[in-house]
Formats: sequence, C-alpha cells, structure tokens
Amino acid sequence: MKEVMAIVRPAKVGATKEALADAGFPSFTCQVVLGRGKKLMSETIATAVLDEGEVPQNQLGEAISEATRLISKRMFTLIVEDDDVPRVVKLLINTNQNKTPGDGKIFVLPISDSYRVRNGERAADAY
Amino acid sequence: MKEVMAIVRPAKVGATKEALADAGFPSFTCQVVLGRGKKLMSETIATAVLDEGEVPQNQLGEAISEATRLISKRMFTLIVEDDDVPRVVKLLINTNQNKTPGDGKIFVLPISDSYRVRNGERAADAY
Amino acid sequence: MKEVMAIVRPAKVGATKEALADAGFPSFTCQVVLGRGKKLMSETIATAVLDEGEVPQNQLGEAISEATRLISKRMFTLIVEDDDVPRVVKLLINTNQNKTPGDGKIFVLPISDSYRVRNGERAADAY
Repeated sequence: MKEVMAIVRPAKVGATKEALADAGFPSFTCQVVLGRGKKLMSETIATAVLDEGEVPQNQLGEAISEATRLISKRMFTLIVEDDDVPRVVKLLINTNQNKTPGDGKIFVLPISDSYRVRNGERAADAY
Repeated sequence: MKEVMAIVRPAKVGATKEALADAGFPSFTCQVVLGRGKKLMSETIATAVLDEGEVPQNQLGEAISEATRLISKRMFTLIVEDDDVPRVVKLLINTNQNKTPGDGKIFVLPISDSYRVRNGERAADAY
Repeated sequence: MKEVMAIVRPAKVGATKEALADAGFPSFTCQVVLGRGKKLMSETIATAVLDEGEVPQNQLGEAISEATRLISKRMFTLIVEDDDVPRVVKLLINTNQNKTPGDGKIFVLPISDSYRVRNGERAADAY
C-alpha cells in the first residue's frame, strides 16, 4: 500500500480527476498548496505561470517579495495498492505533462496501515 | 513513531478534537481538503452530504461538473508512538463512525524522525 | 530520499523560504494548517500567539470553544536526499526557534520514489 502525492497545476485538476476515475481510482483528496520548483522564480513565472495566474500576495498572510513568491498548485493524494503505483504514476504524468517547467512532481510514500471509518475495516479492503 | 492521518466529516471536527485531547493526544493539525470516496459522486451526495453541505463549486478555482464534484472534508494529522496507534485509530473510528458512506478513512504512515523546534530536541521527546 | 515536514509560525514563512533557498533547497510547498501543541490552549494562547493573532473562529466552519481553539500555522513540505536531512533540519530549527512554546515541530518521513512530471524522470534527478 502506498500514498501517491502529486503536485500539479490548478488548470489540470479536472483532467486529473477524470483520468483517475476512468482508470478505477475514484478515491483521493485534493488540496490547495503554494509551491516552488527548482527554477528561479523569475524564470518559472515567465515560462510556467501564464495558465494559472499569480498567487495572491496575501494568501498566506505574509509579505512575499517579488523574487520569492510562491505559485498556487494543487496537491492530489491517493492511496493505492503497490501493484497499482506504476499505472497511477504513468496516468498522472500523461495527464499533467505540458513538457514545461512547473508541470509538477509526484512522490510515493509507504503506508503502514489503513482503516475505513464506516465499519472499522482494516487494510486492503479499507481504501 | 507513526503519522496517523484521518479524513473525516467537517461536522466531526469538534468531537474529534475533544476525544483526542481527552485521551491524552492534544497535538495535531487539521486541514481543509476536498475528497472523494469509492462511491460514485451521485450516490455519495445523496447519502452522505446532507450534514455537510455541498462544496462551493469554485473553491479550487476549477469548473467541476455535477458528476465529479468533490466533498469538503477535514484532515487530522497527528504523530504518535507506535504503541499508541491502535488506541488512536479506535478513538478516531468511534468518534467519526455514522455507519454511512462518507465517514472517512484513516491512514498510518511511518515516521523516521521528529524534532521540536523550540529546543532542537530529537525523537521521542519532541512531539 | 526523505520528506521533511515542518510546522511553523506564520510569521516565520518569509525567513524560512529565504533560508531554504539560500541553502540550495528552493523546492517546497507551503500550506495553511490549524494546529495545537502539547500545552493547554489557554497557556499556548497566552505565551505563543501574540505574534500570529487568533485563528478566525469560523475558518474551518465549526464552532470552536474557547478552551479548544486551534492556532493557525504554516506547514512546509520538502523532499531532500537522505544526506541533506540533518542540514535542512538544523536550518529549519535555527530559522524558527524563538525558544517559546509554539515554535513548531519537524517530522521526517521516508519516501519510496519520486518523479518529475515534465519529462517523466524518476528518482534522484526528479526533485
């Protein structure tokens, strides 16, 4: 069992949701995050932000200088069986790949256990 | 040391907080997340959303179709000793279980290390 | 490869971002979270919240009693090589340490895998 965490562009949320559901992975959460990749902000803004707009300066309640502002992203989190990880990763890459900086990252984390609250079921059947 | 991550209904936040504190687990974070369980959205909305309202369509800045909209959830994250995991999981299930779809999920993740910022303490004493 | 998760004061976001970038760790996400440490809320509010203000009572859409309200925090998440973990942890502690309750916590989690969406690259080069 693994957690797959994908940080993607806001504009790709709809397509990602549909692709996951179509492939049999309808369960996930989606959060608003601010993020920054490896490139310097000025480059990133120039090349990657046109489709997502600038981050509101006060979104985190801090003054953020021009040089270091963050970009609004969406983070998908889903829990899948180990065997399904390659398929989910491939699907996420295919759906979110513009081949430009800012396309996002995918991280895979180990999960020790899972439970369904409704009936207290543990592990494989619980997610 | 483990991270226990619980995705629950917004209406259960108060009871969950109190139950955790009463049981000696006062340290946690709580976040707004949008999520979706295994059931088709239409069913989920019919059976599970009455107590939490619909998600504002524009909360994530994307147009979301009727068929695929997400449900507002709250995610609790707390770090506990391995020995305390069963007790915390049981408490979270008991507090959040309506026995209907949408009650939520609990995931347990391994933690490699932890530190308290105030004094730089590492590991067992730091959380 | 590890995930380093730091829960810090909102007032420290700017300094943390700069410190990470200056040290060669420009990639991270930052989220708004509500949290609570080990201390009773009344004490925590008295000693630690002066610089960050009270949490809006309705931020999570629940009525929160005086005794149990949560504090607005920011959560940084970054993925680093195992060898860089001690340096990042030290940097985060140095930047966020006021030596008062509420300074925050740092957790280190194992990462199984990572991918860059732009070109599908896996692992070491992907983050």
